[in-house]
Amino acid sequence: MPDSVIPLAVPVLSKNDAAARENRKRFDAAGLLVLNVVSSPGSGKTTFLSRTLQDVSNVVRCAVIVGDLATDNDAQRLRVAGTPAVQVQTGTVCHLDATMVARAADQLALERTDVLIIENVGNLVCPAAYRLGEDLRIVLLSVTEGEDKPLKYPTMFKSADVVVITKTDMAAAAGFDRTTAHDTLAAMCPSARVFEVSARTGEGMVSWYRYLTDALALSRGATR
Amino acid sequence: MPDSVIPLAVPVLSKNDAAARENRKRFDAAGLLVLNVVSSPGSGKTTFLSRTLQDVSNVVRCAVIVGDLATDNDAQRLRVAGTPAVQVQTGTVCHLDATMVARAADQLALERTDVLIIENVGNLVCPAAYRLGEDLRIVLLSVTEGEDKPLKYPTMFKSADVVVITKTDMAAAAGFDRTTAHDTLAAMCPSARVFEVSARTGEGMVSWYRYLTDALALSRGATR
Repeated sequence: MPDSVIPLAVPVLSKNDAAARENRKRFDAAGLLVLNVVSSPGSGKTTFLSRTLQDVSNVVRCAVIVGDLATDNDAQRLRVAGTPAVQVQTGTVCHLDATMVARAADQLALERTDVLIIENVGNLVCPAAYRLGEDLRIVLLSVTEGEDKPLKYPTMFKSADVVVITKTDMAAAAGFDRTTAHDTLAAMCPSARVFEVSARTGEGMVSWYRYLTDALALSRGATR
Repeated sequence: MPDSVIPLAVPVLSKNDAAARENRKRFDAAGLLVLNVVSSPGSGKTTFLSRTLQDVSNVVRCAVIVGDLATDNDAQRLRVAGTPAVQVQTGTVCHLDATMVARAADQLALERTDVLIIENVGNLVCPAAYRLGEDLRIVLLSVTEGEDKPLKYPTMFKSADVVVITKTDMAAAAGFDRTTAHDTLAAMCPSARVFEVSARTGEGMVSWYRYLTDALALSRGATR
Protein backbone atom coordinates (compact mmCIF):
# COMPACT_ATOMS: atom_id res chain seq x y z
CA MET A 1 0.00 0.00 0.00
CA PRO A 2 1.52 3.33 -1.03
CA ASP A 3 1.66 5.95 1.70
CA SER A 4 -0.08 8.41 -0.62
CA VAL A 5 -3.39 6.62 -0.14
CA ILE A 6 -3.60 5.68 3.52
CA PRO A 7 -3.59 8.90 5.58
CA LEU A 8 -6.34 10.55 3.58
CA ALA A 9 -9.00 8.02 4.48
CA VAL A 10 -9.04 8.63 8.23
CA PRO A 11 -10.50 12.17 8.50
CA VAL A 12 -12.97 11.48 5.68
CA LEU A 13 -14.22 8.32 7.40
CA SER A 14 -14.52 9.83 10.88
CA LYS A 15 -16.45 12.75 9.39
CA ASN A 16 -18.68 10.26 7.60
CA ASP A 17 -19.20 8.22 10.77
CA ALA A 18 -20.42 11.34 12.57
CA ALA A 19 -22.86 12.10 9.75
CA ALA A 20 -24.03 8.47 9.77
CA ARG A 21 -24.76 8.68 13.49
CA GLU A 22 -26.85 11.80 12.86
CA ASN A 23 -28.73 9.98 10.10
CA ARG A 24 -29.35 7.04 12.39
CA LYS A 25 -30.84 9.27 15.11
CA ARG A 26 -33.07 10.96 12.57
CA PHE A 27 -34.21 7.67 11.03
CA ASP A 28 -34.85 6.11 14.44
CA ALA A 29 -36.90 9.14 15.48
CA ALA A 30 -39.02 8.68 12.34
CA GLY A 31 -39.50 4.96 13.14
CA LEU A 32 -37.80 3.88 9.92
CA LEU A 33 -36.14 0.59 9.04
CA VAL A 34 -33.21 1.54 6.78
CA LEU A 35 -31.49 -0.84 4.35
CA ASN A 36 -28.14 -0.19 2.64
CA VAL A 37 -28.14 -2.41 -0.44
CA VAL A 38 -24.72 -3.01 -1.97
CA SER A 39 -23.20 -5.25 -4.63
CA SER A 40 -21.02 -5.43 -7.67
CA PRO A 41 -22.39 -3.64 -10.78
CA GLY A 42 -24.90 -5.85 -12.53
CA SER A 43 -25.73 -8.17 -9.61
CA GLY A 44 -29.38 -7.28 -9.99
CA LYS A 45 -29.94 -4.73 -7.20
CA THR A 46 -32.51 -2.71 -9.09
CA THR A 47 -34.44 -5.72 -10.40
CA PHE A 48 -34.49 -7.26 -6.90
CA LEU A 49 -35.67 -4.01 -5.30
CA SER A 50 -38.20 -3.25 -8.02
CA ARG A 51 -39.85 -6.65 -7.53
CA THR A 52 -39.76 -6.18 -3.76
CA LEU A 53 -41.48 -2.79 -4.02
CA GLN A 54 -44.11 -4.20 -6.37
CA ASP A 55 -44.89 -7.06 -4.01
CA VAL A 56 -44.76 -5.40 -0.56
CA SER A 57 -46.07 -1.89 -1.22
CA ASN A 58 -49.61 -2.88 -0.24
CA VAL A 59 -48.46 -3.55 3.32
CA VAL A 60 -45.23 -1.58 3.74
CA ARG A 61 -44.66 2.07 2.79
CA CYS A 62 -41.25 2.24 1.15
CA ALA A 63 -39.06 5.08 -0.13
CA VAL A 64 -35.84 4.79 -2.08
CA ILE A 65 -32.55 6.67 -2.36
CA VAL A 66 -30.40 5.39 -5.21
CA GLY A 67 -26.81 6.26 -6.06
CA ASP A 68 -25.10 6.05 -9.43
CA LEU A 69 -22.18 7.85 -11.00
CA ALA A 70 -24.44 8.91 -13.87
CA THR A 71 -28.00 8.54 -15.20
CA ASP A 72 -31.27 8.40 -13.28
CA ASN A 73 -32.24 5.08 -14.86
CA ASP A 74 -32.53 3.30 -11.53
CA ALA A 75 -34.72 5.88 -9.81
CA GLN A 76 -37.07 5.68 -12.77
CA ARG A 77 -37.17 1.87 -12.53
CA LEU A 78 -37.82 2.07 -8.78
CA ARG A 79 -40.77 4.45 -8.95
CA VAL A 80 -43.09 1.44 -9.01
CA ALA A 81 -46.34 1.17 -7.12
CA GLY A 82 -46.14 4.84 -6.15
CA THR A 83 -42.78 4.54 -4.41
CA PRO A 84 -40.93 7.86 -4.11
CA ALA A 85 -37.33 7.51 -5.33
CA VAL A 86 -34.54 10.08 -5.18
CA GLN A 87 -31.52 9.64 -7.47
CA VAL A 88 -28.12 10.79 -6.23
CA GLN A 89 -25.63 11.27 -9.06
CA THR A 90 -22.19 10.90 -7.51
CA GLY A 91 -20.15 11.97 -10.56
CA THR A 92 -16.80 10.27 -10.11
CA VAL A 93 -17.37 9.33 -6.45
CA CYS A 94 -17.42 5.56 -6.00
CA HIS A 95 -19.89 5.26 -3.10
CA LEU A 96 -22.72 7.01 -1.30
CA ASP A 97 -21.72 8.74 1.92
CA ALA A 98 -23.85 9.72 4.89
CA THR A 99 -24.04 13.40 3.89
CA MET A 100 -25.36 12.56 0.42
CA VAL A 101 -27.98 10.34 2.05
CA ALA A 102 -29.00 13.09 4.50
CA ARG A 103 -29.53 15.55 1.64
CA ALA A 104 -31.51 13.02 -0.38
CA ALA A 105 -33.64 12.16 2.67
CA ASP A 106 -34.65 15.84 2.90
CA GLN A 107 -36.64 15.24 -0.30
CA LEU A 108 -38.65 12.34 1.18
CA ALA A 109 -41.63 12.33 3.55
CA LEU A 110 -39.93 10.17 6.19
CA GLU A 111 -42.90 10.42 8.57
CA ARG A 112 -45.03 8.57 6.00
CA THR A 113 -42.39 5.88 5.35
CA ASP A 114 -41.82 2.48 6.98
CA VAL A 115 -38.76 1.23 5.12
CA LEU A 116 -36.10 3.45 3.55
CA ILE A 117 -34.12 1.51 0.95
CA ILE A 118 -30.75 2.92 -0.07
CA GLU A 119 -29.43 1.36 -3.27
CA ASN A 120 -25.71 2.12 -3.24
CA VAL A 121 -23.34 2.60 -6.19
CA GLY A 122 -22.41 -0.75 -7.75
CA ASN A 123 -19.04 -1.41 -6.12
CA LEU A 124 -17.94 -4.22 -3.79
CA VAL A 125 -15.04 -2.25 -2.31
CA CYS A 126 -15.50 1.39 -1.33
CA PRO A 127 -19.11 1.41 -0.04
CA ALA A 128 -17.96 -1.07 2.64
CA ALA A 129 -16.17 1.75 4.47
CA TYR A 130 -19.06 4.23 4.50
CA ARG A 131 -21.82 3.76 7.05
CA LEU A 132 -24.95 5.62 6.00
CA GLY A 133 -27.01 5.30 9.18
CA GLU A 134 -28.59 2.03 8.08
CA ASP A 135 -30.08 -0.69 10.29
CA LEU A 136 -29.17 -3.48 7.93
CA ARG A 137 -26.54 -3.91 5.27
CA ILE A 138 -27.80 -6.14 2.47
CA VAL A 139 -25.11 -7.53 0.14
CA LEU A 140 -26.15 -9.10 -3.16
CA LEU A 141 -24.14 -11.80 -4.92
CA SER A 142 -25.38 -13.09 -8.27
CA VAL A 143 -24.85 -16.71 -9.29
CA THR A 144 -22.95 -15.53 -12.38
CA GLU A 145 -20.17 -13.78 -10.41
CA GLY A 146 -18.38 -16.79 -8.98
CA GLU A 147 -18.51 -18.38 -5.54
CA ASP A 148 -15.13 -16.92 -4.49
CA LYS A 149 -16.28 -13.29 -4.35
CA PRO A 150 -16.80 -13.25 -0.54
CA LEU A 151 -13.14 -14.29 -0.14
CA LYS A 152 -11.94 -11.61 -2.53
CA TYR A 153 -14.06 -8.78 -1.09
CA PRO A 154 -13.84 -9.66 2.62
CA THR A 155 -14.54 -6.21 4.09
CA MET A 156 -17.89 -5.97 2.37
CA PHE A 157 -19.06 -9.50 3.08
CA LYS A 158 -17.88 -9.45 6.71
CA SER A 159 -20.05 -6.37 7.24
CA ALA A 160 -23.19 -7.99 5.76
CA ASP A 161 -26.27 -8.50 7.91
CA VAL A 162 -28.00 -10.18 4.98
CA VAL A 163 -26.62 -11.80 1.82
CA VAL A 164 -29.00 -12.27 -1.10
CA ILE A 165 -27.85 -14.72 -3.76
CA THR A 166 -29.57 -13.42 -6.90
CA LYS A 167 -30.39 -14.71 -10.41
CA THR A 168 -30.90 -18.29 -9.22
CA ASP A 169 -32.81 -18.97 -12.45
CA MET A 170 -29.40 -18.79 -14.17
CA ALA A 171 -27.58 -21.05 -11.68
CA ALA A 172 -27.39 -24.05 -14.00
CA ALA A 173 -26.28 -21.97 -17.01
CA ALA A 174 -23.58 -20.32 -14.87
CA GLY A 175 -22.39 -23.60 -13.35
CA PHE A 176 -23.03 -22.09 -9.91
CA ASP A 177 -21.62 -24.24 -7.10
CA ARG A 178 -24.18 -23.75 -4.35
CA THR A 179 -22.33 -25.73 -1.68
CA THR A 180 -19.10 -23.80 -2.17
CA ALA A 181 -20.98 -20.50 -2.10
CA HIS A 182 -22.69 -21.34 1.19
CA ASP A 183 -19.46 -22.68 2.72
CA THR A 184 -17.66 -19.47 1.73
CA LEU A 185 -20.39 -17.27 3.16
CA ALA A 186 -20.47 -19.33 6.36
CA ALA A 187 -16.73 -18.72 6.74
CA MET A 188 -16.80 -15.00 5.92
CA CYS A 189 -20.08 -13.84 7.48
CA PRO A 190 -21.37 -16.63 9.75
CA SER A 191 -24.04 -14.46 11.35
CA ALA A 192 -25.49 -13.10 8.09
CA ARG A 193 -28.92 -14.35 7.01
CA VAL A 194 -28.67 -15.79 3.49
CA PHE A 195 -31.47 -15.80 0.91
CA GLU A 196 -31.50 -17.28 -2.58
CA VAL A 197 -33.80 -15.56 -5.03
CA SER A 198 -34.72 -15.01 -8.63
CA ALA A 199 -36.43 -11.65 -8.97
CA ARG A 200 -37.28 -12.68 -12.53
CA THR A 201 -39.25 -15.83 -11.62
CA GLY A 202 -40.11 -14.80 -8.05
CA GLU A 203 -38.46 -17.91 -6.59
CA GLY A 204 -37.39 -17.35 -2.98
CA MET A 205 -38.73 -13.79 -2.76
CA VAL A 206 -41.45 -14.60 -0.20
CA SER A 207 -38.89 -15.66 2.43
CA TRP A 208 -37.18 -12.33 1.95
CA TYR A 209 -40.46 -10.42 2.35
CA ARG A 210 -41.18 -12.28 5.61
CA TYR A 211 -37.72 -11.40 6.89
CA LEU A 212 -38.24 -7.75 5.92
CA THR A 213 -41.60 -7.41 7.64
CA ASP A 214 -40.25 -9.20 10.75
CA ALA A 215 -37.25 -6.85 10.81
CA LEU A 216 -39.59 -3.87 10.55
CA ALA A 217 -41.74 -5.12 13.43
CA LEU A 218 -38.62 -5.79 15.50
CA SER A 219 -37.15 -2.33 14.84
CA ARG A 220 -40.42 -0.70 15.91
CA GLY A 221 -40.50 -2.77 19.07
CA ALA A 222 -36.92 -1.73 19.77
CA THR A 223 -37.52 1.99 19.35
CA ARG A 224 -40.77 2.14 21.33
CA MET B 1 -20.32 15.64 -3.80
CA PRO B 2 -19.20 16.45 -0.26
CA ASP B 3 -16.20 18.75 -0.03
CA SER B 4 -14.53 16.21 2.27
CA VAL B 5 -13.84 13.96 -0.71
CA ILE B 6 -12.76 16.21 -3.53
CA PRO B 7 -9.50 17.93 -2.50
CA LEU B 8 -7.81 14.70 -1.46
CA ALA B 9 -7.89 13.13 -4.90
CA VAL B 10 -5.75 15.71 -6.68
CA PRO B 11 -2.29 15.19 -5.10
CA VAL B 12 -2.77 11.40 -5.06
CA LEU B 13 -3.64 11.34 -8.75
CA SER B 14 -0.84 13.65 -9.89
CA LYS B 15 1.62 11.52 -7.90
CA ASN B 16 0.17 8.43 -9.56
CA ASP B 17 0.38 10.00 -13.01
CA ALA B 18 4.08 10.66 -12.49
CA ALA B 19 4.65 7.05 -11.43
CA ALA B 20 2.63 5.84 -14.43
CA ARG B 21 4.84 7.86 -16.79
CA GLU B 22 7.92 6.25 -15.22
CA ASN B 23 6.34 2.81 -15.71
CA ARG B 24 5.56 3.61 -19.32
CA LYS B 25 9.18 4.62 -20.05
CA ARG B 26 10.45 1.44 -18.43
CA PHE B 27 7.94 -0.77 -20.27
CA ASP B 28 8.67 0.93 -23.61
CA ALA B 29 12.40 0.46 -23.07
CA ALA B 30 11.78 -3.26 -22.51
CA GLY B 31 9.69 -3.45 -25.71
CA LEU B 32 6.57 -4.52 -23.83
CA LEU B 33 2.92 -4.24 -24.81
CA VAL B 34 1.08 -3.57 -21.54
CA LEU B 35 -2.63 -4.23 -20.99
CA ASN B 36 -4.67 -2.89 -18.05
CA VAL B 37 -7.68 -5.22 -17.76
CA VAL B 38 -10.58 -3.84 -15.74
CA SER B 39 -14.18 -4.77 -15.04
CA SER B 40 -16.80 -5.28 -12.41
CA PRO B 41 -16.19 -8.20 -10.01
CA GLY B 42 -17.26 -11.45 -11.62
CA SER B 43 -17.20 -10.31 -15.26
CA GLY B 44 -14.80 -13.12 -16.09
CA LYS B 45 -11.42 -11.36 -16.22
CA THR B 46 -9.45 -14.31 -14.89
CA THR B 47 -11.22 -16.90 -17.04
CA PHE B 48 -10.75 -14.73 -20.14
CA LEU B 49 -7.06 -14.15 -19.39
CA SER B 50 -6.39 -17.76 -18.43
CA ARG B 51 -7.79 -18.98 -21.76
CA THR B 52 -5.81 -16.29 -23.61
CA LEU B 53 -2.56 -17.36 -21.91
CA GLN B 54 -3.26 -21.01 -22.69
CA ASP B 55 -3.87 -20.27 -26.36
CA VAL B 56 -1.20 -17.66 -27.18
CA SER B 57 1.73 -18.67 -24.99
CA ASN B 58 3.32 -20.69 -27.83
CA VAL B 59 3.82 -17.51 -29.83
CA VAL B 60 3.74 -14.66 -27.30
CA ARG B 61 5.65 -14.52 -24.00
CA CYS B 62 3.27 -13.16 -21.40
CA ALA B 63 3.61 -12.15 -17.75
CA VAL B 64 0.85 -11.17 -15.37
CA ILE B 65 0.37 -8.78 -12.45
CA VAL B 66 -2.96 -9.29 -10.71
CA GLY B 67 -4.59 -7.18 -8.01
CA ASP B 68 -7.14 -8.25 -5.42
CA LEU B 69 -8.04 -7.01 -1.97
CA ALA B 70 -7.38 -10.49 -0.60
CA THR B 71 -6.38 -14.02 -1.70
CA ASP B 72 -3.90 -15.11 -4.36
CA ASN B 73 -6.53 -17.23 -6.14
CA ASP B 74 -6.19 -15.35 -9.41
CA ALA B 75 -2.39 -15.50 -9.62
CA GLN B 76 -2.63 -19.26 -9.09
CA ARG B 77 -5.23 -19.55 -11.86
CA LEU B 78 -3.08 -17.45 -14.20
CA ARG B 79 0.12 -19.44 -13.81
CA VAL B 80 -0.87 -21.48 -16.87
CA ALA B 81 1.47 -22.60 -19.62
CA GLY B 82 4.47 -21.41 -17.59
CA THR B 83 3.27 -17.81 -17.30
CA PRO B 84 4.84 -15.92 -14.38
CA ALA B 85 2.15 -14.18 -12.30
CA VAL B 86 2.62 -11.77 -9.37
CA GLN B 87 -0.29 -11.21 -7.00
CA VAL B 88 -0.68 -7.77 -5.41
CA GLN B 89 -2.90 -7.84 -2.33
CA THR B 90 -4.28 -4.33 -1.94
CA GLY B 91 -5.92 -4.82 1.47
CA THR B 92 -8.71 -2.25 1.56
CA VAL B 93 -7.45 -0.28 -1.46
CA CYS B 94 -9.96 -0.40 -4.31
CA HIS B 95 -7.61 -0.25 -7.30
CA LEU B 96 -4.05 -0.89 -8.42
CA ASP B 97 -1.88 2.20 -8.66
CA ALA B 98 1.28 2.78 -10.67
CA THR B 99 3.59 2.35 -7.67
CA MET B 100 2.12 -1.07 -6.82
CA VAL B 101 2.62 -2.08 -10.45
CA ALA B 102 6.23 -0.86 -10.46
CA ARG B 103 7.02 -2.95 -7.37
CA ALA B 104 5.32 -6.02 -8.80
CA ALA B 105 7.16 -5.57 -12.11
CA ASP B 106 10.47 -5.78 -10.19
CA GLN B 107 9.65 -9.46 -9.65
CA LEU B 108 9.26 -10.20 -13.38
CA ALA B 109 11.86 -10.75 -16.09
CA LEU B 110 10.60 -7.95 -18.34
CA GLU B 111 13.39 -8.46 -20.88
CA ARG B 112 12.00 -11.93 -21.59
CA THR B 113 8.38 -10.75 -21.87
CA ASP B 114 6.34 -9.58 -24.88
CA VAL B 115 3.00 -8.76 -23.28
CA LEU B 116 2.52 -7.67 -19.66
CA ILE B 117 -1.07 -8.21 -18.59
CA ILE B 118 -2.27 -6.30 -15.52
CA GLU B 119 -5.52 -7.69 -14.13
CA ASN B 120 -6.90 -4.90 -11.97
CA VAL B 121 -9.11 -5.12 -8.86
CA GLY B 122 -12.74 -5.85 -9.82
CA ASN B 123 -14.24 -2.37 -9.70
CA LEU B 124 -15.80 -0.27 -12.47
CA VAL B 125 -15.22 3.04 -10.69
CA CYS B 126 -11.91 3.74 -8.97
CA PRO B 127 -9.44 2.01 -11.33
CA ALA B 128 -10.64 4.40 -14.06
CA ALA B 129 -8.72 7.24 -12.40
CA TYR B 130 -5.39 5.42 -12.04
CA ARG B 131 -3.15 5.09 -15.07
CA LEU B 132 -0.62 2.30 -14.59
CA GLY B 133 1.63 2.93 -17.57
CA GLU B 134 -0.42 0.71 -19.89
CA ASP B 135 -0.60 0.86 -23.68
CA LEU B 136 -4.17 -0.37 -23.81
CA ARG B 137 -7.04 -0.33 -21.37
CA ILE B 138 -9.25 -3.38 -21.83
CA VAL B 139 -12.71 -3.16 -20.22
CA LEU B 140 -14.77 -6.33 -19.83
CA LEU B 141 -18.58 -6.34 -19.75
CA SER B 142 -20.35 -9.65 -19.21
CA VAL B 143 -23.72 -10.34 -20.85
CA THR B 144 -25.24 -10.93 -17.40
CA GLU B 145 -24.53 -7.39 -16.11
CA GLY B 146 -27.02 -5.42 -18.18
CA GLU B 147 -26.57 -3.36 -21.32
CA ASP B 148 -26.79 -0.03 -19.44
CA LYS B 149 -23.49 -0.40 -17.56
CA PRO B 150 -21.50 1.81 -19.99
CA LEU B 151 -23.98 4.64 -19.29
CA LYS B 152 -23.73 4.17 -15.53
CA TYR B 153 -19.92 3.91 -15.38
CA PRO B 154 -19.02 6.49 -18.05
CA THR B 155 -15.50 7.34 -16.88
CA MET B 156 -14.35 3.76 -17.21
CA PHE B 157 -15.99 3.02 -20.54
CA LYS B 158 -14.94 6.35 -22.09
CA SER B 159 -11.33 5.46 -21.28
CA ALA B 160 -11.53 2.01 -22.94
CA ASP B 161 -9.32 1.18 -25.90
CA VAL B 162 -10.96 -2.23 -26.14
CA VAL B 163 -14.26 -3.55 -24.77
CA VAL B 164 -14.67 -7.31 -24.47
CA ILE B 165 -18.23 -8.55 -24.06
CA THR B 166 -17.78 -11.81 -22.11
CA LYS B 167 -19.86 -14.91 -21.32
CA THR B 168 -21.67 -14.84 -24.68
CA ASP B 169 -22.60 -18.50 -24.12
CA MET B 170 -25.01 -17.15 -21.46
CA ALA B 171 -26.50 -14.38 -23.63
CA ALA B 172 -29.83 -16.15 -24.23
CA ALA B 173 -30.25 -17.17 -20.57
CA ALA B 174 -29.51 -13.59 -19.49
CA GLY B 175 -31.84 -12.02 -22.06
CA PHE B 176 -28.86 -10.00 -23.32
CA ASP B 177 -29.91 -7.28 -25.79
CA ARG B 178 -26.98 -7.23 -28.20
CA THR B 179 -28.19 -4.28 -30.27
CA THR B 180 -28.69 -2.05 -27.23
CA ALA B 181 -25.29 -3.03 -25.86
CA HIS B 182 -23.53 -2.13 -29.12
CA ASP B 183 -25.50 1.12 -29.48
CA THR B 184 -24.56 2.10 -25.92
CA LEU B 185 -20.90 1.30 -26.49
CA ALA B 186 -20.92 3.21 -29.78
CA ALA B 187 -22.26 6.25 -27.90
CA MET B 188 -19.88 6.02 -24.92
CA CYS B 189 -16.65 4.82 -26.53
CA PRO B 190 -16.98 5.13 -30.31
CA SER B 191 -13.28 4.52 -30.97
CA ALA B 192 -13.00 1.39 -28.80
CA ARG B 193 -12.58 -1.95 -30.54
CA VAL B 194 -15.35 -4.31 -29.38
CA PHE B 195 -15.05 -8.11 -29.14
CA GLU B 196 -17.66 -10.66 -28.12
CA VAL B 197 -16.29 -13.81 -26.57
CA SER B 198 -17.03 -16.87 -24.51
CA ALA B 199 -13.85 -17.99 -22.80
CA ARG B 200 -15.73 -21.14 -21.81
CA THR B 201 -16.59 -22.27 -25.36
CA GLY B 202 -13.79 -20.35 -27.12
CA GLU B 203 -16.26 -18.48 -29.34
CA GLY B 204 -14.81 -15.19 -30.58
CA MET B 205 -11.43 -15.65 -28.90
CA VAL B 206 -9.45 -15.96 -32.14
CA SER B 207 -10.39 -12.42 -33.25
CA TRP B 208 -9.09 -11.16 -29.92
CA TYR B 209 -5.80 -13.08 -30.34
CA ARG B 210 -5.32 -11.57 -33.81
CA TYR B 211 -5.92 -8.09 -32.42
CA LEU B 212 -3.44 -8.75 -29.61
CA THR B 213 -0.65 -9.98 -31.88
CA ASP B 214 -1.27 -7.08 -34.28
CA ALA B 215 -1.11 -4.60 -31.39
CA LEU B 216 2.18 -6.17 -30.25
CA ALA B 217 3.66 -5.89 -33.75
CA LEU B 218 2.48 -2.30 -34.02
CA SER B 219 3.92 -1.33 -30.61
CA ARG B 220 7.29 -2.78 -31.59
CA GLY B 221 7.26 -0.90 -34.88
CA ALA B 222 6.45 2.29 -32.98
CA THR B 223 9.28 1.96 -30.47
CA ARG B 224 11.95 0.97 -32.99
